[in-house]
Amino acid sequence: MAIRHKLSGIYSPVLTPFTPDLAPDAAAFVRHCRWLVAQEVGLAVFGTNSEANSLSAAERRGLLDALLAAGLPAQRMLPGTGCCSLTETVELTRHATSAGVGGVLMLPPFYYKGVSDEGLFRHFSEVIQRVGDSRLRIYLYHIPPVAQVPISLGLIERLMKAYPTAIAGMKDSSGDWSNTEAVLKQFQPDGFDVFAGSEVFLLRTLRGGGAGCITATGNVNPAPMVKLHRSWEGSEADPQQAALDVTRAAFQKYPLIAAMKAAVAHYSRTPSWRTVRPPLTELATQQERALIDSLETIGFAMPGL
Amino acid sequence: MAIRHKLSGIYSPVLTPFTPDLAPDAAAFVRHCRWLVAQEVGLAVFGTNSEANSLSAAERRGLLDALLAAGLPAQRMLPGTGCCSLTETVELTRHATSAGVGGVLMLPPFYYKGVSDEGLFRHFSEVIQRVGDSRLRIYLYHIPPVAQVPISLGLIERLMKAYPTAIAGMKDSSGDWSNTEAVLKQFQPDGFDVFAGSEVFLLRTLRGGGAGCITATGNVNPAPMVKLHRSWEGSEADPQQAALDVTRAAFQKYPLIAAMKAAVAHYSRTPSWRTVRPPLTELATQQERALIDSLETIGFAMPGL
Repeated sequence: MAIRHKLSGIYSPVLTPFTPDLAPDAAAFVRHCRWLVAQEVGLAVFGTNSEANSLSAAERRGLLDALLAAGLPAQRMLPGTGCCSLTETVELTRHATSAGVGGVLMLPPFYYKGVSDEGLFRHFSEVIQRVGDSRLRIYLYHIPPVAQVPISLGLIERLMKAYPTAIAGMKDSSGDWSNTEAVLKQFQPDGFDVFAGSEVFLLRTLRGGGAGCITATGNVNPAPMVKLHRSWEGSEADPQQAALDVTRAAFQKYPLIAAMKAAVAHYSRTPSWRTVRPPLTELATQQERALIDSLETIGFAMPGL
Repeated sequence: MAIRHKLSGIYSPVLTPFTPDLAPDAAAFVRHCRWLVAQEVGLAVFGTNSEANSLSAAERRGLLDALLAAGLPAQRMLPGTGCCSLTETVELTRHATSAGVGGVLMLPPFYYKGVSDEGLFRHFSEVIQRVGDSRLRIYLYHIPPVAQVPISLGLIERLMKAYPTAIAGMKDSSGDWSNTEAVLKQFQPDGFDVFAGSEVFLLRTLRGGGAGCITATGNVNPAPMVKLHRSWEGSEADPQQAALDVTRAAFQKYPLIAAMKAAVAHYSRTPSWRTVRPPLTELATQQERALIDSLETIGFAMPGL
């Protein structure tokens, strides 16, 4: 029996371009999103790799509005809307949901550490009830290495029972395959869409019945990921996965956001793409040169960028 | 030679009261701040114990405006203005500074972990330059157990050199006395105001030339702390410190914010004070009863509340 997913495929936490004075560059953002959509990658705007938490709520709303105004398809968008505060989370989730997005990717409130599942359940409950929109589809964002606040299996179970329509799936960025496997086994049969947080787990996730992956390097290497998502049952799947891993490793030798921005700047000949907001820093010139050299060596390209 | 501090004494990260529907209760907030000022405690509104990161930027601005409209003294305020985003940090810092506050308490951007001192330096630099107000006095907020992004001695040194007027001091909530001691030795001689993050370090901080403490339990036990701050050179200082530690320990057996809110609710006979915003949860009834019992045993009171 074929698995039916609400959302599936490859999504990318879209890099956020800044002008040299650190303002979001909406025009460059729209251009990059158009390229990603042309590569058949979904727009998980405002993720970790988007420097979303380095943006104000108003800046996130403004960038989403710019994409909509440019005619990019809302249904292909999966914006990050989880903030530390209930109120900003509700504001962003309501704004995105009313725009008709495919879903929202929601971090837990991440300032307080060691909080209880009861407290997190109350937070997500409040958000769902306050947004009060039957179109709401939440993808829970589990990224303990950064947020330091995990989304446990027990919490997922409780949320799915209470909100079977609104709780749609998750992105697992734990980097721990045994967790992704456990989520797939326990919740996928009930229609919970599991996305791996990196393409290094793409093939395993698809073989386990998962929906796909939401991955940083979808910004730079989308086509081979989309191809694997389409042909994962074929005989070439393992070598395809191995090739993805090689490209990932080339980027991951450096701070990932700065490295991807350097690659986009280089291949699009747009120097301002290198800009990151503090507290991040751009790659040093020698690092960028070494990155581009290693990408050339493996035949990397960003056609059509 | 007497040490001259820009700010000194006891400050409290003011608890934020919520109405039962989780909205900030400005009237109860003003009342609590009036009581704290009458106890001669400064108003470090929007700290960790204020659930500040569970508030939107607009909610923080609104509560600060409510205090100002109520005639509370801006000079006694030390609002928390550090957010994950540069833009919200600038917005809140500018708003507070233009209101004439004594200083601002500034978290580092705390979403990304393992960021470099260079990235943090750029963040604080941008904030200072964008606020562009000669009245700005920043107290750096070092709280690695929660923010998970520390403020190193090297960063303090670099910031003080670049911004000798704006960088005014710090709150050390590391819980690590050796760090406070190192900061006192290295930077106090240049007029850097060091506040301990808990009254358990108050006497040691004052003996080391520090400015005082900014402490959660200043919300509930202010008078004895103020008394020790005034008489720390007297013969009764050590027993006074020991008494402070006893009260602190009684609260600290429970999740601290919920425990303090339960005490304020109990002693002010205002049940809604128990309300916390998710992801925090209030004390269970039995916990609250045990807390109040233990407070009664040690003769705790909140006179005039």
